[in-house]
Amino acid sequence: MAAGGDWQSALPAAAAVELLHNFSLIHDDIQDNSPYRRGRLAVWKLWGIPQAINAGDAMFTLAHMALNPLQESHPPGVVLKAHELLENACLALTQGQYLDISYEARSDLTLEAYWPMVGGKTAALLATCTELGALTAQVSPDTQESYRELGRYLGLAFQVQDDLLGIWGDAAVTGKSSESDLVAGKNSLPVLFGLSQNGPFAARWRAGPIQPDEVTDLADALVAEGALNYTRSTADRLTAKALQSLENADPQGDGGEALVSLANKLLKRDG
Amino acid sequence: MAAGGDWQSALPAAAAVELLHNFSLIHDDIQDNSPYRRGRLAVWKLWGIPQAINAGDAMFTLAHMALNPLQESHPPGVVLKAHELLENACLALTQGQYLDISYEARSDLTLEAYWPMVGGKTAALLATCTELGALTAQVSPDTQESYRELGRYLGLAFQVQDDLLGIWGDAAVTGKSSESDLVAGKNSLPVLFGLSQNGPFAARWRAGPIQPDEVTDLADALVAEGALNYTRSTADRLTAKALQSLENADPQGDGGEALVSLANKLLKRDG
Repeated sequence: MAAGGDWQSALPAAAAVELLHNFSLIHDDIQDNSPYRRGRLAVWKLWGIPQAINAGDAMFTLAHMALNPLQESHPPGVVLKAHELLENACLALTQGQYLDISYEARSDLTLEAYWPMVGGKTAALLATCTELGALTAQVSPDTQESYRELGRYLGLAFQVQDDLLGIWGDAAVTGKSSESDLVAGKNSLPVLFGLSQNGPFAARWRAGPIQPDEVTDLADALVAEGALNYTRSTADRLTAKALQSLENADPQGDGGEALVSLANKLLKRDG
Repeated sequence: MAAGGDWQSALPAAAAVELLHNFSLIHDDIQDNSPYRRGRLAVWKLWGIPQAINAGDAMFTLAHMALNPLQESHPPGVVLKAHELLENACLALTQGQYLDISYEARSDLTLEAYWPMVGGKTAALLATCTELGALTAQVSPDTQESYRELGRYLGLAFQVQDDLLGIWGDAAVTGKSSESDLVAGKNSLPVLFGLSQNGPFAARWRAGPIQPDEVTDLADALVAEGALNYTRSTADRLTAKALQSLENADPQGDGGEALVSLANKLLKRDG
């Protein structure tokens, strides 16, 4: 069987990742004290923290259980490997989340702190998505590795681009400046780069929370210190790596075309 | 291989259940607002709720990962079945926990509400312990079922006995009456039986929290209404079922003797 083949037999793996992602959002909303999710009250806000923790645990369990029907169409070794990949993703997510939470209280972060955190979040989940797809298609180990790399670089490139838009995207700069990552105090890549320069941006950031009316000037200061160029070139580098991995994976058929189209859409968004 | 055989090859399964139990305690302590665990500060009290939720999620993941080394000594089908048993236990635990949390706010509980709650907690975990042991020993399906029943009845009998001691045990009656389940407001089996009688106990219970100086009189009222007899005969019935399942399982060798001795110890404790 080749990648781009029978997509139905991969559905249990896809459901597992989707459930895993949603479980993590239920717990994230408690951890971030976020009252809303997708325009509705978050689980914890509606049912209380104890039930929300428990509902997340139940969905975490269901993510694992979702893999069971793979046994109907795949040899046991593939199913066991799928369990391992899912568990590796879970562990990476908790490692990324640990760093994310502990970074909130710190003002001494360096650029190096960025990669372990984002590597354990979007990138770990997307790498698992693409690798599980390749695993269930039973392609060669080399090709599975290319798919894993594709997901990883896609996740990293997407995250860096998201960081860029969070400061210089339309919503962040114009009108809705309260949506700027600068006001939210997010330790994004441009911010960590700015801190590493120890210039006017770093001095202002360390002095306390940024107010909405400072956003435009502070975003300009970051540009002057090179943060936009650095972030853009990082995104470009990661995008090139993602596209190279996609070429190595060489997806086939209708499914393959859809994947190429999706990857291009994710990598070239303007915000 | 028979039950009572090579215990080392069952260790990954034992580690998985131990990690699962400890994960559940980390989240339980947040849900119950309990500041202490085993005489030390609970995880959430020491590191905050966000990190404690995440640490529990990580340990939940490690419980699943602990099963992986089973692959070195067991066929893939057994390892996949072990994953399924662990996941069934996880789901049962979240179902029991859901009921436990939702019961706290209710004063209309009936005796029937008791079994789904305790069935999803201690009993589900112990049933998984004994079944995983039998599974990894690769005994016949009938014997595996006997081990599962042993664990389930052991868990139920232990829980009912625990409920009995929580009201009529030494610590609950004498001196430390603040440790009485009556003061804690726990929906234990004697309490649910008492409520079903709609007598003096039910009237007092529904009027509001029990104070420590009322514990002796209220425990006596429960005895007069038949709750002690009912709870004791229920514990006896479950104990007999556990011992019958143990006989059916017919454990062998040193391990078998240790199991019989452990079961008897658990079932005959005086508190």
